[in-house]
Amino acid sequence: MIMTGFELPESLSVYGDEEQAKEILSRIWGKRGVFTCTVANTRTSTIPGVSDAGDTPELTMFTPAADAEILVSGKTTCMKGIPINPGGIPTPATLTMAALRLSSIPYYIVNGGCEIVPYVPYFDMGGVCGEKITTGHAVKNVRQEYEKGYMLGEMLAKAYDFVIVSESCAGGTTTALAVMMAMGVLKENLVSSSSPKNPKELKSRLVAEALEAAGIKPGDLADDPLKAIECVGDPMMPANIGIIAGAAKSVPVIVGGGTQMAAVMAGVAKMHPEVVGNFFQGTTRWLMNDPNSSMKRIMDGISDRIPIVYVNVDYSDSPYEGLQAYEWGFIKEGVGCGGASVGAIIESKGQITCADLVDKVHELYRGIMGFD
Amino acid sequence: MIMTGFELPESLSVYGDEEQAKEILSRIWGKRGVFTCTVANTRTSTIPGVSDAGDTPELTMFTPAADAEILVSGKTTCMKGIPINPGGIPTPATLTMAALRLSSIPYYIVNGGCEIVPYVPYFDMGGVCGEKITTGHAVKNVRQEYEKGYMLGEMLAKAYDFVIVSESCAGGTTTALAVMMAMGVLKENLVSSSSPKNPKELKSRLVAEALEAAGIKPGDLADDPLKAIECVGDPMMPANIGIIAGAAKSVPVIVGGGTQMAAVMAGVAKMHPEVVGNFFQGTTRWLMNDPNSSMKRIMDGISDRIPIVYVNVDYSDSPYEGLQAYEWGFIKEGVGCGGASVGAIIESKGQITCADLVDKVHELYRGIMGFD
Repeated sequence: MIMTGFELPESLSVYGDEEQAKEILSRIWGKRGVFTCTVANTRTSTIPGVSDAGDTPELTMFTPAADAEILVSGKTTCMKGIPINPGGIPTPATLTMAALRLSSIPYYIVNGGCEIVPYVPYFDMGGVCGEKITTGHAVKNVRQEYEKGYMLGEMLAKAYDFVIVSESCAGGTTTALAVMMAMGVLKENLVSSSSPKNPKELKSRLVAEALEAAGIKPGDLADDPLKAIECVGDPMMPANIGIIAGAAKSVPVIVGGGTQMAAVMAGVAKMHPEVVGNFFQGTTRWLMNDPNSSMKRIMDGISDRIPIVYVNVDYSDSPYEGLQAYEWGFIKEGVGCGGASVGAIIESKGQITCADLVDKVHELYRGIMGFD
Repeated sequence: MIMTGFELPESLSVYGDEEQAKEILSRIWGKRGVFTCTVANTRTSTIPGVSDAGDTPELTMFTPAADAEILVSGKTTCMKGIPINPGGIPTPATLTMAALRLSSIPYYIVNGGCEIVPYVPYFDMGGVCGEKITTGHAVKNVRQEYEKGYMLGEMLAKAYDFVIVSESCAGGTTTALAVMMAMGVLKENLVSSSSPKNPKELKSRLVAEALEAAGIKPGDLADDPLKAIECVGDPMMPANIGIIAGAAKSVPVIVGGGTQMAAVMAGVAKMHPEVVGNFFQGTTRWLMNDPNSSMKRIMDGISDRIPIVYVNVDYSDSPYEGLQAYEWGFIKEGVGCGGASVGAIIESKGQITCADLVDKVHELYRGIMGFD
């Protein structure tokens, strides 16, 4: 059922199988979606230099919970202020909020395994905080999380026409690299970073250490994504694999996120090939244009049937330096900001534009920073 | 805005302010609802003789988790078989399932505080298992549960036209009696039981002991429902007060359940008088006709603006003795079976009848018992 008549609005672009993307888009255009964000901690993020998703290595542990609190209640309880990267660049949750508020898409938090727990209602998956991947046994309760995620995906698919799945897990590009190396879908370090100075050498070294600690060589766990996650992943991953697979067997799914979610999609493609063709990645042009990573090459290595739909939001003309920084290579993705934006455009049949999203981000940002 | 033109279908009856009930019904007739069931444990249920919601006092602790598992996955993981009362009478979750399956109303489990945790996705409220009320300090994290419940109510109200709130908490009529005595809305023991032999003397004695242990006299906590719950309630209560209040400020709420939920409604009426007029109780004719309790007199003591809408489901002609037992005074309510039935009738604009519900219960019961 190829909808050759489907026209992409200017706000969206596609990489990969465009017909596949348009076929899915045509089925959910103007329909009712739901957004989920799976928050989790991995102590990997506290290794100095790994993660910029927080003002200091210690504060990266608070970022997922704080993101969840911002989305649900518009303010943080677990920490003062909002999560920032060093330099004061605000969390991408600002764009996620803008998309969700403009579109009225309902949203739920999923706790994949947090050390710092958000002070909001969340779906519990039975997960706990992940250990440093260099231990070689990074995640507990992997199967339980996957199974509960699958049930949650089924539940959400009963109630909505499409499901957006996303994450906030500091340190998550490093764990994604490790899992994709263990699975053999990635041979080199192509993952992104929330900093324009992607610490690629450090990440590659930690991943090599992690694989050695787990006693596995690259590609050894090609057929066992859950085992790869248990050894060197993070607790966001098994929950999201489950949610995507459980939902996508009956409704289309938008996998919101950047290279962190590639490991999740690789897991879904391996464990549930039957749902490939019923989901696409939803992300931002910032991520797609990152010179220090390659979302495109990563996805080319996973499947040629998982297209990428990205939103062309542009902060170049923003009056706020913290937002302009997104154009300089900071942040780029996270908290499902790309997926939520793509979802909002879909639900509104393209009525919501990139300009609307930027205006709403400015309004929210002014409120949060007390500029009004 | 009184809708005098609204005609009740035969499947439903009303007690109390009929105009109020019809006004709310007319606003949600044919609209999209969501069902929640808050599961929790109180060790009060393990006091021999208190609760029949389980084959033995120890098994009453497994009943809430097992009910949640049945609703979500159609089978139990935490125990073998399904929860039964002594004598093999099946959990009211069978009727809840029938209503939810017939209507396609989406449903979510809320964990108010379980010792035995269901193996399904649930919204966590930060609660823990309740202690015996005779300790005088029965529930921890009461304010947190209430606040997270309030947020959850707001979230659900964003996505649905009405919200059904319910419970599975063995021992809950005893804790309800204690809280309503502490609040002074009940002067005598009018609460129900899942057994036709309501152990009223035992319950009254335990409640007197509980109030003494807490150092309070009847009516002392008229203005502080959360304190009453902390002393002598159970962990289902603060979560449900929050959900009802958070949802009912914007959409109508059906409070599904019997005398257990009266304590919750008393709490809502005291803490959030602004939402009275936007919710009603949804229950069963079995409960309304119970000669050993008086839902009517309890509600008369709480507010004259909270009508009761009850479903006229009748198991008299059922070929299964376990179901006929409902007509003899067993079970009567629980797991939101009344609220879910009322909700299914509302969403279908009365197209779903009591006969449809009974047929579906028979089909599910045969499947569960392996009769097919």
